[in-house]
Amino acid sequence: MTEPIRTDVAIIGAGPVGLFAVFELGLLDMKAHVIDILDKPGGQCAELYPEKPIYDIPAWPVISGQDLTDRLLEQIEPFGPTFHYGHMVETLERRADGMFVLGTDQGLILEAPVVVIAAGGGSFQPKRPPIPGIEGYESTSVFYSVRRMEDFRDKDLVIVGGGDSALDWTLNLQPLARRVTLIHRRDAFRAAPDSVNKMRALVDAGEMDLVLGQVSALRGEGARLTDISVTDLEKNERVIACDRLLPFFGLTMKLGPVANWGLNLEENLIPVDTEKFETSEPGIFAIGDINWYPGKLKLILSGFHEGALMAQAAYRIVYPDKRLVFQYTTSSTSLQKKLGVA
Amino acid sequence: MTEPIRTDVAIIGAGPVGLFAVFELGLLDMKAHVIDILDKPGGQCAELYPEKPIYDIPAWPVISGQDLTDRLLEQIEPFGPTFHYGHMVETLERRADGMFVLGTDQGLILEAPVVVIAAGGGSFQPKRPPIPGIEGYESTSVFYSVRRMEDFRDKDLVIVGGGDSALDWTLNLQPLARRVTLIHRRDAFRAAPDSVNKMRALVDAGEMDLVLGQVSALRGEGARLTDISVTDLEKNERVIACDRLLPFFGLTMKLGPVANWGLNLEENLIPVDTEKFETSEPGIFAIGDINWYPGKLKLILSGFHEGALMAQAAYRIVYPDKRLVFQYTTSSTSLQKKLGVA
Repeated sequence: MTEPIRTDVAIIGAGPVGLFAVFELGLLDMKAHVIDILDKPGGQCAELYPEKPIYDIPAWPVISGQDLTDRLLEQIEPFGPTFHYGHMVETLERRADGMFVLGTDQGLILEAPVVVIAAGGGSFQPKRPPIPGIEGYESTSVFYSVRRMEDFRDKDLVIVGGGDSALDWTLNLQPLARRVTLIHRRDAFRAAPDSVNKMRALVDAGEMDLVLGQVSALRGEGARLTDISVTDLEKNERVIACDRLLPFFGLTMKLGPVANWGLNLEENLIPVDTEKFETSEPGIFAIGDINWYPGKLKLILSGFHEGALMAQAAYRIVYPDKRLVFQYTTSSTSLQKKLGVA
Repeated sequence: MTEPIRTDVAIIGAGPVGLFAVFELGLLDMKAHVIDILDKPGGQCAELYPEKPIYDIPAWPVISGQDLTDRLLEQIEPFGPTFHYGHMVETLERRADGMFVLGTDQGLILEAPVVVIAAGGGSFQPKRPPIPGIEGYESTSVFYSVRRMEDFRDKDLVIVGGGDSALDWTLNLQPLARRVTLIHRRDAFRAAPDSVNKMRALVDAGEMDLVLGQVSALRGEGARLTDISVTDLEKNERVIACDRLLPFFGLTMKLGPVANWGLNLEENLIPVDTEKFETSEPGIFAIGDINWYPGKLKLILSGFHEGALMAQAAYRIVYPDKRLVFQYTTSSTSLQKKLGVA
């Protein structure tokens, strides 16, 4: 059991809106821990369109999702947030003393008087391929991400997919695994050409296998996979030894456990007021694409505004006895000291 | 009488929030005319702190008021807004057909179905020096800005002040005027040292006068000034011939004629809803520092959000028969074409 970590504000979601919330909270002396299911900051921006240009960030005629993320990380750096990547929040409860206790699938426990849900369209979850019975092998033989490469040493590993994740893990795990087989539905790959060339060289050298077709069946003992069937392009079935299966079918957005936290939901969105952006549960705020109010637009710039107003309300919960004086970064030496520029 | 100009949206105020409103309106095919009392864009940012750093513009860890203005101008360039600088809106009325008619002190008349007030703390107005009877000479012999340099040719010109405006106009008008006298209350100037040196060189060469002291009285015939009295540092009174007086005592913020437009006002702020940021008068919106709603913070980033939501509501007024489909700049080819990047 992990020791609980106490902080001022737990932010769920490290997308641009969650990141900027760290800034607004920091200006008001509140420390934040940020949790994200992805393995890096930026959320949708960094995951779905890191290199795609965005044109409607104010004062940025054009900026990529990755650059936007990098600039926000630089801006919040003075406030030293703690990030927990690769964590999915599974439980959120209010203790008798009013404190929220938040638990993740990785065993992290956070205690905070304020929780900010900045989870965008929900959490990104790997798409499950349509193979009968696959759920029964998940977490024992079937994995959707690689947490520790050592877990794949000396295994009969089958990787499915044609994108960068599939090719990158094929190349990274091939030296460790007993045998790697890459399965893709056609002989064309979305992955970087260089990775594809390296994979083909390994196939030509006989050091791994490439099979064009689709996984049609899984067989095993209990939850442990032993072999799979692949239907190739000529409709022939081939049996391949397999005790680890890594399907990379992309990510899908799911609201995830948020749906079970007792908040009012409307069509998978969390209704909030427009004064504090607080949910039906006092102390839990929702900002960015996941919230709803009359007039709501799912724009990053709206999430920035929502975070600024949320921070004022959070202050009154975190520091119930202090009086908040509104100040500007342009003129307040006290704010500039926090930012490390005065 | 000027010919009225017809446009989709008249924006009052060319500060950052007014500028970004052009962008959000432009994405939705609405053309804008922007009016500002200052002689350049940027409002408070460019006028009061062009070189002072701002730290809380999202994704800009630090940016000057001038750079922020320049980036926003670049961002709205594809939408070709028309700017009217040095205009003060004096009248705003709704015609029988529902169209707003807006008139400025320079005789400009705009007709638009939508008016957006983005006037910040109000309009900047020159501070009137405390000289008895000065109002009686305003617009005939006393001016607070220079619209046409020719108006000062061969005049006995007195300029009062120690900042950049006073020194710049001293240097610019000295070659035209019959005689220039600069009056300042002490022998220390806030203006750029280079300008001060140039002014002192002209004084040493006998080509202009510098008097340290304060203007104590004005004399003239009707509304035409003939001479003034200056009390110098030794309390002696000097009489100086003067038929043009240019006092530069800085700018002050005034709500100005907005107060007379029949909108509900609370402590010089305009209450709006948080769905459309519309005032008590349908079709007139207020965004940025001039509006008020529960939770309101006078932050530039909030004005950006308010402009985005306003644009959706404005669209329904400008195009009552069209259906608005919400699109993202990242993925919509149609928006990218408007931005000139697709």
